Amino acid sequence: MTARTTRVVCLVRRPDGEPVPGDFAVEERPLPPLGEGQLLVRNLYMSVDPSMRGRLESTEKHYTHNFTPGSPLDGRALGVVEESRCPSVPAGSFVRHQLGWRERAVLDPADTDGAGRIDPELAPLPTWLGLLGQTGFTAYVGLARIAEVRPGDTVFVSAAAGAVGSAAGQFARMLGAERVIGTAGGPDKCALLVKEFGYDAAADYRAEPVREALARLAPEGIDVYFDNVGGEQLAAALHALRPGGRVALCGMMSQFGGDRRSADINQLIQAVLKRLTLRGFIVRDHEDLRPEFESRVADWLRSGDVLARETVVDGLENASAALLSLLAGGNIGKMLVRLDGTS
Amino acid sequence: MTARTTRVVCLVRRPDGEPVPGDFAVEERPLPPLGEGQLLVRNLYMSVDPSMRGRLESTEKHYTHNFTPGSPLDGRALGVVEESRCPSVPAGSFVRHQLGWRERAVLDPADTDGAGRIDPELAPLPTWLGLLGQTGFTAYVGLARIAEVRPGDTVFVSAAAGAVGSAAGQFARMLGAERVIGTAGGPDKCALLVKEFGYDAAADYRAEPVREALARLAPEGIDVYFDNVGGEQLAAALHALRPGGRVALCGMMSQFGGDRRSADINQLIQAVLKRLTLRGFIVRDHEDLRPEFESRVADWLRSGDVLARETVVDGLENASAALLSLLAGGNIGKMLVRLDGTS
Repeated sequence: MTARTTRVVCLVRRPDGEPVPGDFAVEERPLPPLGEGQLLVRNLYMSVDPSMRGRLESTEKHYTHNFTPGSPLDGRALGVVEESRCPSVPAGSFVRHQLGWRERAVLDPADTDGAGRIDPELAPLPTWLGLLGQTGFTAYVGLARIAEVRPGDTVFVSAAAGAVGSAAGQFARMLGAERVIGTAGGPDKCALLVKEFGYDAAADYRAEPVREALARLAPEGIDVYFDNVGGEQLAAALHALRPGGRVALCGMMSQFGGDRRSADINQLIQAVLKRLTLRGFIVRDHEDLRPEFESRVADWLRSGDVLARETVVDGLENASAALLSLLAGGNIGKMLVRLDGTS
Repeated sequence: MTARTTRVVCLVRRPDGEPVPGDFAVEERPLPPLGEGQLLVRNLYMSVDPSMRGRLESTEKHYTHNFTPGSPLDGRALGVVEESRCPSVPAGSFVRHQLGWRERAVLDPADTDGAGRIDPELAPLPTWLGLLGQTGFTAYVGLARIAEVRPGDTVFVSAAAGAVGSAAGQFARMLGAERVIGTAGGPDKCALLVKEFGYDAAADYRAEPVREALARLAPEGIDVYFDNVGGEQLAAALHALRPGGRVALCGMMSQFGGDRRSADINQLIQAVLKRLTLRGFIVRDHEDLRPEFESRVADWLRSGDVLARETVVDGLENASAALLSLLAGGNIGKMLVRLDGTS
């Protein structure tokens, strides 16, 4: 039997500054033979995540491995089992796993990282990588456990039109927030925040200093900041937070890419003056919350209280362009690559 | 009866940049008559606190009032009751209260802020403003509750020769820390950290970048950072913290005064990567811990496990100079002004 191959997206070299198309290439790689207990999966959807940006660099990440030049990227994906040597996951099953950025993958069911088989009857496939996937779970953990959103809170979310941000705005309201404010880049995204994602008010961080926007939109201050960007917006939030306020630190996209406006770390004096708590978190520390999360968000989706919105790009050959577009803010909601599955 | 007066230290004007002697003046002010339930107290010791620096400015503090030009300063003090119209606090009692920066004060026992009468047999008077006072309580709350120091932790304390820092190093060890590292300005203070305050190692932040010092003195990383200064040292700690690490944000002296080295707020990306928690705190939110604190620290003092160290300046007319000296790092341990009591 001829060794099988799959097309994969490889990192050609570490980016020198901003990543460019030439940093990535689609290549053909052998697939290992299917061992006892393993699955051959054909990927249908692949998740494109902001956290991939940091993994392109060489600095240690503490919670994950970096990509290696010459090797395939990886990331969350959802596929259908084509061949199975694992009786509990027969061919035809849909599984979520970590071996995206390739058309096919051989994996152990254990590699599916707790997510495993999904039920396509319960929600459309893309939703399992978006609102019901790690993206939604990140928003849920950050709000419900890290920032402890309570009824009546005023909640501020940055990168609010992005995958996590568009989930966070909607979830914050379902968790009882009285007022939800978001920032995004440009008037179109800001309009969507209010129209589709249930934000009470939106501000364009490119058009107005965020500190002024918060003073205008939340004159009484905010209770919670869900931080996706760091920099100037984090500093602005520190000033807007009321005593006892809480910050969920989810990412710092501003340290990469276009919005390089930063601030002095001594703005943290606000945390002393107002007894603020800032907590960084990694969602995989909070798997115990997943059943509660899935059940609540599935209910909210069914009732139409929250809306799954995806930006979908077709074809493995366009996957790295999708990543570059995401890093430039080109997505609304969850960014996904769809594979046609005919290769 | 002639109205009584007292000498007070007044704020003449808000400092323009660094405070200078001319910003303060000793003046004579009338004392109100002693009302029902009130005490006339002659102050014996007055606390000189870094937090006074911020109160000289006009920006809102959220947790206290700012000083007002033309009015007396205030602050923690300890005095003896000269006249009492409160049966439960007879003349001759020693009380802690908030009306320092003056020789005599008329106060309601309620103004003593829970501290109230102290027992001079249990510990020397200065200790009641230092290790057994708000200074020690700040160190205790920051370590035991905010940073949750656990047996085996490596703990880093900045401004470690100061009042709170010299308490924090000693308390950290008593709370089970395995290794305690401190920074201070200059070789003399660094030597004292190890010799008197029980630090395992000390680094001179003026002589070496703190990030390098921590890499050298805690190559395995730190678990807790007790932050008194912010700026470069906070950034260095973020890099040295191990996953799950905790930061007690107690003050940010680096945003005033000589050590203006700062850092980018995006260094907080470390908090995401390593799931760090940073918490600002104000000690008065934690009065429930005070009985436990007083009992444990009194034990530690009795057994000689911790050492009370004070820098004492004599005379009300030297009080503002004592504050300027404190802000320039001129104190070891707790800075106090002693009043001779003969005026």
